[in-house]
Amino acid sequence: MEKYSVPIDDMSFILNNLLNINSFLKGNDEDLSSDSIKMIIEEAGKFATDELDTINQIGDKEGIKLENGVVRMPESFIKTYQNFVSTGWFSVIGAKKYGGQDLPLSAVVMINEIWHSTNISFATNNMLTQGAVELLESHGDEKQKDYYLPNLISGKWSGTMNLTEPHAGSDLSLIKTKAIENNNQFFIKGTKIYITHGDQDMSDNIIHFVLAKLPNSPKGVKGISLFLVPKYYLNNKGNRVKNDIKVVSIEQKLGHHASPTCVLSFGENDGAVGELIGQPNQGLKIMFTMMNNARLNVGVQGLAISERAYQKALNFSKERVQGYSLNKKISEPVKIIKHPDVKRMLMEMRSQTEAMRGLAVITGNFIDKYKSFPNSPEGKECLFISNLLTPIVKAWCTDQSIYITSLGVQVHGGMGFIEDTGAAQYYRDCRILSIYEGTNGIQALDLLRRKLFQENGETYKKVLQIIKNTAKRATESENNNLKEMGELLLKSLGVIEDCSVWLIDKYEENPEISATGATPFLNMFGWVLGGWVMVNSANKAQLIILKDKNDKFAKEKINTASFFCNTYLPLASSLQNTIKKSFYALENFD
Amino acid sequence: MEKYSVPIDDMSFILNNLLNINSFLKGNDEDLSSDSIKMIIEEAGKFATDELDTINQIGDKEGIKLENGVVRMPESFIKTYQNFVSTGWFSVIGAKKYGGQDLPLSAVVMINEIWHSTNISFATNNMLTQGAVELLESHGDEKQKDYYLPNLISGKWSGTMNLTEPHAGSDLSLIKTKAIENNNQFFIKGTKIYITHGDQDMSDNIIHFVLAKLPNSPKGVKGISLFLVPKYYLNNKGNRVKNDIKVVSIEQKLGHHASPTCVLSFGENDGAVGELIGQPNQGLKIMFTMMNNARLNVGVQGLAISERAYQKALNFSKERVQGYSLNKKISEPVKIIKHPDVKRMLMEMRSQTEAMRGLAVITGNFIDKYKSFPNSPEGKECLFISNLLTPIVKAWCTDQSIYITSLGVQVHGGMGFIEDTGAAQYYRDCRILSIYEGTNGIQALDLLRRKLFQENGETYKKVLQIIKNTAKRATESENNNLKEMGELLLKSLGVIEDCSVWLIDKYEENPEISATGATPFLNMFGWVLGGWVMVNSANKAQLIILKDKNDKFAKEKINTASFFCNTYLPLASSLQNTIKKSFYALENFD
Repeated sequence: MEKYSVPIDDMSFILNNLLNINSFLKGNDEDLSSDSIKMIIEEAGKFATDELDTINQIGDKEGIKLENGVVRMPESFIKTYQNFVSTGWFSVIGAKKYGGQDLPLSAVVMINEIWHSTNISFATNNMLTQGAVELLESHGDEKQKDYYLPNLISGKWSGTMNLTEPHAGSDLSLIKTKAIENNNQFFIKGTKIYITHGDQDMSDNIIHFVLAKLPNSPKGVKGISLFLVPKYYLNNKGNRVKNDIKVVSIEQKLGHHASPTCVLSFGENDGAVGELIGQPNQGLKIMFTMMNNARLNVGVQGLAISERAYQKALNFSKERVQGYSLNKKISEPVKIIKHPDVKRMLMEMRSQTEAMRGLAVITGNFIDKYKSFPNSPEGKECLFISNLLTPIVKAWCTDQSIYITSLGVQVHGGMGFIEDTGAAQYYRDCRILSIYEGTNGIQALDLLRRKLFQENGETYKKVLQIIKNTAKRATESENNNLKEMGELLLKSLGVIEDCSVWLIDKYEENPEISATGATPFLNMFGWVLGGWVMVNSANKAQLIILKDKNDKFAKEKINTASFFCNTYLPLASSLQNTIKKSFYALENFD
Repeated sequence: MEKYSVPIDDMSFILNNLLNINSFLKGNDEDLSSDSIKMIIEEAGKFATDELDTINQIGDKEGIKLENGVVRMPESFIKTYQNFVSTGWFSVIGAKKYGGQDLPLSAVVMINEIWHSTNISFATNNMLTQGAVELLESHGDEKQKDYYLPNLISGKWSGTMNLTEPHAGSDLSLIKTKAIENNNQFFIKGTKIYITHGDQDMSDNIIHFVLAKLPNSPKGVKGISLFLVPKYYLNNKGNRVKNDIKVVSIEQKLGHHASPTCVLSFGENDGAVGELIGQPNQGLKIMFTMMNNARLNVGVQGLAISERAYQKALNFSKERVQGYSLNKKISEPVKIIKHPDVKRMLMEMRSQTEAMRGLAVITGNFIDKYKSFPNSPEGKECLFISNLLTPIVKAWCTDQSIYITSLGVQVHGGMGFIEDTGAAQYYRDCRILSIYEGTNGIQALDLLRRKLFQENGETYKKVLQIIKNTAKRATESENNNLKEMGELLLKSLGVIEDCSVWLIDKYEENPEISATGATPFLNMFGWVLGGWVMVNSANKAQLIILKDKNDKFAKEKINTASFFCNTYLPLASSLQNTIKKSFYALENFD
């Protein structure tokens, strides 16, 4: 059977060459090194291949059931969850004092990629719990931390986010769920929809984080508070009691069939017992502090599913014999990987996936650096840069995952359309990524309205300068491939500079016209950043080749980078006209 | 409930302005006019809205069942099929002497669009039967025509195509199914897979066209013959007998859930009784004579599903209230159609769909013209041009349908991922179109290896000249929008000329390098042809505006054309580098 294989070579290359992880770790965690991180990644890869990948299609086919108000997961998921917890995979994150390993985010990004590559329905549970841990670490009080964190970090309990209501999707200002205080306790009443892993029978308890409104709170987003509402809580007598939370229904979805998406009704009887997190009316602000990492993680889901779709297509194309070579010396039918158009498809998948991985890990690394020195100017600069990169990673990686998983289907030919083959599942599973955690249209507006204007425009200029330095280094190489890539990257930098200025000016003049260019601008930025990652990688690969001219990985990396730059950087530049002329769309629909 | 509405204005515009259908009809069919065709289209629209659209999602959910060797369609499909037959919709095609209305293909393309927009699972049956009629009209003997055509044209019986075998997908030279002659009858033995509507309980009989090999036939594609194998045949005594055909299984597919895809076993007992069509060993040649129209029709499926996805997204965006306007004068939450990024998505969907429709209908019109004067130089020129356009319509429209239906999901936000909403069905249903009837990679190779070389390169030069004439007319307009579009089109023409020459030269030097550029070249050609359709439409719309400056349709058409040209023509040109540099893909996979 076709199997997942962890892309350890590319991950190691990124750690050692794009991040220089050892010098980063030296100041932060003496116990860790690039070697120990590599070992952890390899172990995660083994677990993922043996357990998560194996049950991925089973989960897709079996799906989940709602029986007597309880969500039933596939049997295999329950067993694997236990193994996942007992082998300690939940606790790669979280402070050491609560049992976490507190690995740097750049390493966690790679580990998360592995889980989402092999089983996105399963891994989403883990992703949400990571978010819950982060939220509590930043905003919980000591009592809350001491009680909840050890269980969430171990994975004994898992976490969920409850934001959306039927009339409040992208716009949270409209939420109606209420919280009433009584005797130092809060009671929650209201209906939440699209609650991922809102119920399941894998973990011992489920800790819901719920946005709700206190009485007499301000209108709109400034009147929203955040509550922790556990599925089971301890009552005054210390007994474990089921909270007043009902699973109303589960959604029939295009994908993520083994990830329960629930409608939850809180407090139909006496009100669901909850605890306030942070200050009243600060709920949305608190949610947003963890939103950045959540968005980065969704970008990683896009990367992850692209990697898996690529591996599946690659493995198939090495087996399937069909058609003849254009090389007339070969007279027998050939494996389809020999066909130039199949190679082109595989190369699109591979080069994009490598660029995404580099970009996602680098973004994680900027956040790591900020966390190491949160108050220094360098630390703040890293934060600002990660703020700019995050919506791009989220939207660009998830948009491209649709294209890449679709190519994965295409490589399989007619078999790609048959569900048993498995390629179609990735095409279905990826389709929510550009929607949840803020639609990609919202990411593009965030980039335009907040991130381009951040530090009065200094942040985006800094990022473009970093890219320019990499491009120049390539143009100075003696390798003509690198020179050419460097030139292509410089050219598209000129275009993106021009577009940035245009969008900023236009936004001040007429925000609606500027906003029609937001999505093509985000895509342009994605391709240019992808180009930067690939040229940077090629520069580093060239150094390896100078030491060993037969290094296969380094040679392939330069080749893949050439393909990426030649294919996608002209595409990026072509979006200049699109950005400036999309306003025609405003005319037709009024 | 959200409903389909036939895009009659755009269809009328194409008939009257892009084709000048009346002057064409005058010489061919005195009974028809653009008005009567419009009436037929409107009637088709009514039937499609009331019946096909209504049961589309029902079919998707219920699916089909294989019970005791018989495929069971959803009840609603059986009833609708009867209505479809009794109202005469099958017989828009077919010679009048056999009961057909023999409408021009340009009109049939629009009618087919309507069926596929509203119910692709249902309409595929009709599409295949149209192919069977065409095949028999061209290659059946008089007895076969007299017996089979009236029943196929009425829809009492339906037709299927049996090409693929487990080891012979894109490469038919490998087929193993055998035909043995005995007493002037042929007996077929072998297994065929992916047989669309290979069995169903809607029509009274099913006529299978089966590729098989006669004993001692030449190796490879030159030894394949074509047989007609009915589900029920009349034996010597004139009794209706069930043929020796077994439905082995039906596929569980990503989409087309109400379109049975069967594995058929022919002749497990005594052999399935069949009739030879045409001469022995000419089977593939015969199949290919109908392949062009079949490929055009699959392109139309891509167009059709894009139109439906667009309408659904448009209707949703006019209802759904969410978020605030960037225009600060509006303080209440707005319908999402007011958001610039939603408008941009809708405009992408609309402008591409309009370009596809024009291109598909024009291609049908070239075939109509050829059929009117098959032996004249003008007729032959039309044939050659339609030969060139067909793989582009097939591949470009179906590739883009993936993108457009994906945008359709995106406009719906979280609801798009829920199956009940219906947007996801289009995203699933469209995914086979770029695979069947020759994968899009094969279309791209066909364009490169056969169509670019057709008439020693004269055909493609003629097509580019036609486009140039349209572009020049636009540049001479007093409307600045038109001028700009004309210039954009001229610019991309220069690029495509350059790429054509490069690909032809390179093909002769090293076909594998040339072939890596085949798919991006086909895409480039698609965008440029789309641009041609839109600039041509804008030229004609401008004439309407000169008569009535308030004509809403004409103004919107120019606006949509501007958006199309500004967005996609620079993209087309950006593929120049991709075409010439995709050969990097060859290096990484050896």
